[in-house]
Amino acid sequence: MSGFTSGVQRYAAIVEYNGACFHGWQKQKHHNEPTIQAALEAAISKVANHPVEIACAGRTDAGVHATRQVIHFDSHAVRTEYSWLMGVNTNLPDGIALQWVSPIDAEFHARFKARARRYRYLINNSPTKQALQHDQLTWWRYPLDAQRMHDAAQALIGEHDFSAFRAKDCQAKSPVKTMHHIQVKRWGNVIMLELESSAFLYHMVRNIVGVLLPIGEGHKPVEWMAEVLATRDRRQAGVTAPGEGLYFVGVDYPEQFDIPCKPYGPVLLEPVLSLV
Amino acid sequence: MSGFTSGVQRYAAIVEYNGACFHGWQKQKHHNEPTIQAALEAAISKVANHPVEIACAGRTDAGVHATRQVIHFDSHAVRTEYSWLMGVNTNLPDGIALQWVSPIDAEFHARFKARARRYRYLINNSPTKQALQHDQLTWWRYPLDAQRMHDAAQALIGEHDFSAFRAKDCQAKSPVKTMHHIQVKRWGNVIMLELESSAFLYHMVRNIVGVLLPIGEGHKPVEWMAEVLATRDRRQAGVTAPGEGLYFVGVDYPEQFDIPCKPYGPVLLEPVLSLV
Repeated sequence: MSGFTSGVQRYAAIVEYNGACFHGWQKQKHHNEPTIQAALEAAISKVANHPVEIACAGRTDAGVHATRQVIHFDSHAVRTEYSWLMGVNTNLPDGIALQWVSPIDAEFHARFKARARRYRYLINNSPTKQALQHDQLTWWRYPLDAQRMHDAAQALIGEHDFSAFRAKDCQAKSPVKTMHHIQVKRWGNVIMLELESSAFLYHMVRNIVGVLLPIGEGHKPVEWMAEVLATRDRRQAGVTAPGEGLYFVGVDYPEQFDIPCKPYGPVLLEPVLSLV
Repeated sequence: MSGFTSGVQRYAAIVEYNGACFHGWQKQKHHNEPTIQAALEAAISKVANHPVEIACAGRTDAGVHATRQVIHFDSHAVRTEYSWLMGVNTNLPDGIALQWVSPIDAEFHARFKARARRYRYLINNSPTKQALQHDQLTWWRYPLDAQRMHDAAQALIGEHDFSAFRAKDCQAKSPVKTMHHIQVKRWGNVIMLELESSAFLYHMVRNIVGVLLPIGEGHKPVEWMAEVLATRDRRQAGVTAPGEGLYFVGVDYPEQFDIPCKPYGPVLLEPVLSLV
């Protein structure tokens, strides 16, 4: 299983978090605001009883949630999977929890072995804002046509230069990514977008949603998405949609690693619960 | 429509709130902690441009949520329903929002005209705690048999003295209430209880859940619920289950008032969202 000498073992883990509880993924050098990376490294280090550094499949912005973020870390501590899971969760604050931990081959890398990432974006399309999940869906009060949004989004499928949807601080080496699929679907008041791509540029999903919103409202034609993509110019796209509706929901790895990372969730206001 | 002189109109409204954002329903005299009643009265008074007091169908404890709380208030301010809804929501903090407002007959009273209240209780029955909805479901890590819990709960149907489930600070005049139905059902990791009663005593739902949990775990027999009820002694029941899984979801009023208060929600972790 291990490719290390000296008894060091690599572990993979699946993490769920509420982005509203943190200031984004990345550990901060000069600030004391809570971040997901810092919370996880502190909790895992405590259980390992030595300093642990982690890597993740996809770093998320402030406010962005995850149902299936994948991380890896190395440790020489001898712990069962159950001990890692329970011990780390006991040391994590509210709003973040490991869902699965397993020893894994030393070749595994949460970021570099990922072949595709999947995001979902949830919109509460209703005249009245939601209260229970106020930080877990984006509220959009004007009626949206999910079918128009779906049709427009299909222009993004395939390999493209996604510069038109790339925020200026993006550190990716190349703006060329391969979009595997995008679907837009409505359940009652909730509209969900699902996107899977080889990788995502900084703010790429939120900038795509920023173009889909005026198309869904009917202010822009369905063809506008293809036009914006072709310009490769960020100034042609719309506003950056809020981060609160965005979820990192899954990663595709080679089968050999056997990560149980089927996309899952996120939460949905579900009238099916009306039993009587 | 009105039964008032001098142009005063009564209004009914439906409110959704996340109990984790507030210190319970009731306005506090000597503390400055945010309460649901205080937030609503401040926002409605601002839109009305005069001080407004409200009454609700069922006061909820700290941490307890609502998808369909019903309130009423009186005002001589001339506003459309849309103006009330948008104006009040603009003046409310995150975690609370009106979902509906309408003028209503002056005979209507949110509390005294209610014929029944409905609550739901959500349990995340999983070895790992949830992160996204950490304050919206009760986490119970030991396996629960929902069918046993359902069977046990049927002993409560009908008119009973519910003193065994009544917390000591309860201000109700009588411990005798009529339970219309209780259902316990599982969807994946989520167990939901739904209860409808003529009225509820203080902590009654949470104390009923406190008896159902050891029955669901198999530590107590199904018959234990009927035995606890018969004792009318709070000391015979179990612990008070946490408030975070509890939702006020609906009220039954006489049809003449036409309140659109079909029980709804609450939130559910829904794997059906897996599109591809």
